[in-house]
Amino acid sequence: MKICIVGLGLIGGSYAMGLSLKGYEVYGIDQNQEAIKYAKKQNYIKDGYVDDFHILSECDCIILAIYPQAILDFLKQHSHLFQENQVLTDVCGVKSSFVRKATLLAGKAIYLSHHPMAGKEKIGIEYADSSIFKGANFLITPIDSLNAYAEEILKRIAQDLEFGRITTISIERHDQMIGFTSQLTHAIAVSLVNSDHDEDTVKFIGDSYRDLTRIAMINDVLWSELFLENKDYLLEHISSFEAELDILKNALKQDDKATLKKIFNRSTQIRRKMEK
Amino acid sequence: MKICIVGLGLIGGSYAMGLSLKGYEVYGIDQNQEAIKYAKKQNYIKDGYVDDFHILSECDCIILAIYPQAILDFLKQHSHLFQENQVLTDVCGVKSSFVRKATLLAGKAIYLSHHPMAGKEKIGIEYADSSIFKGANFLITPIDSLNAYAEEILKRIAQDLEFGRITTISIERHDQMIGFTSQLTHAIAVSLVNSDHDEDTVKFIGDSYRDLTRIAMINDVLWSELFLENKDYLLEHISSFEAELDILKNALKQDDKATLKKIFNRSTQIRRKMEK
Repeated sequence: MKICIVGLGLIGGSYAMGLSLKGYEVYGIDQNQEAIKYAKKQNYIKDGYVDDFHILSECDCIILAIYPQAILDFLKQHSHLFQENQVLTDVCGVKSSFVRKATLLAGKAIYLSHHPMAGKEKIGIEYADSSIFKGANFLITPIDSLNAYAEEILKRIAQDLEFGRITTISIERHDQMIGFTSQLTHAIAVSLVNSDHDEDTVKFIGDSYRDLTRIAMINDVLWSELFLENKDYLLEHISSFEAELDILKNALKQDDKATLKKIFNRSTQIRRKMEK
Repeated sequence: MKICIVGLGLIGGSYAMGLSLKGYEVYGIDQNQEAIKYAKKQNYIKDGYVDDFHILSECDCIILAIYPQAILDFLKQHSHLFQENQVLTDVCGVKSSFVRKATLLAGKAIYLSHHPMAGKEKIGIEYADSSIFKGANFLITPIDSLNAYAEEILKRIAQDLEFGRITTISIERHDQMIGFTSQLTHAIAVSLVNSDHDEDTVKFIGDSYRDLTRIAMINDVLWSELFLENKDYLLEHISSFEAELDILKNALKQDDKATLKKIFNRSTQIRRKMEK
């Protein structure tokens, strides 16, 4: 299969790496000549382009590994290059805000969005590593009806990158759930780290603090966009979280050991079901 | 060195395992005959006792790996067995609530508390694993004056178990900081998991959710005690955390991308300093 990856960052680079290892013919597009040079040197791509995008017409699948707003700009500029039976997809962490628009801009090509639930607290193709996808959740997010051919292409890619569970759901349901599992999680980690007002904290941390706050090292450009594009769901989830924290706080204030135990038993049960 | 470990659970068992591997003569005390049998079979201890505690008189160091309230009960019952120049210590996650009392009950022996900042989301000696201590923070928590001999003994144990940074601080400072790095962290993870009201969440999680919520699988008996014994500090930390979350929420509500970016930059900077 001939693939073009637009945006050779951490995720685009990891796709290029994993897919070329599986024998795909992979091409890359990036504004940054250095990223292309690196990708070629590592054999992640067969060739790469900074300003000549004729390659877009020749690929079976185009993976847009850039930010939501950049996707819309890119599609506007290059829609004349897309072909019938080409599958266009993206890897964005929010969907509702742009996928309908992207689908229109894709013209005769088939647009089918997806979300690889994997990453690293790093930026740039130098950190590319296709093993981050191993066993991870892969979400396919159609609007209205699902094109079977495009779904087949995405599933093949997911399997070749060794993703785990593949789930097909609407973009609205995607954003609702990701607002909880991803954005709320990041909001909490960031707020926890920012409430640290002590110089000596590092002497008092264990793995629990380390694990919980790793994602507080966060790409500010990407995540401010993701948060704002999904703000309604995110604000809702923050409220439910605060309600739970209030229950715990009240139990503490009232020295209510029985309720604390109930709270801990409940979280243990819910979380244990999620162990791999 | 002759060591007696009281309480062969996950932490006591891991101490027994690590110290016996380093050539210490290790004995165990536990209410549960099965734990002692297991520890002997694994060569974690030379011998173990359920009801005859004469061994307490013969050891250089007694490590109390049981819960705070149980420590006080144990000391009351067995204070006649302690000797001069014996070092008594404990591994509890809170200190202010019981260490002064424990020091009085230790009689002629020297009581010097410490806190190994390592663990697992498991209960019982079957999960003992001394490698959890490798590189971890080790806190020595004296009251008033510090006995140099006891400090020396604890440092030797910490080094032999391959802990990383060893810090000596007061019990009050310990509880203040642990209220933040450990108890607040657990309060947050538990509240996040309990605010999950969807059956399908597991399909939408990535490593960030997994890492952040692992500690929501929590020993209800131990942690309800830890939370309540440190409730003042913990409630203070919850408030600072909520204040930070409010700043983020307001930025979201007002579509204030610049503030979101500032928040993310700040957390990235603070957290990056903590990378090993």
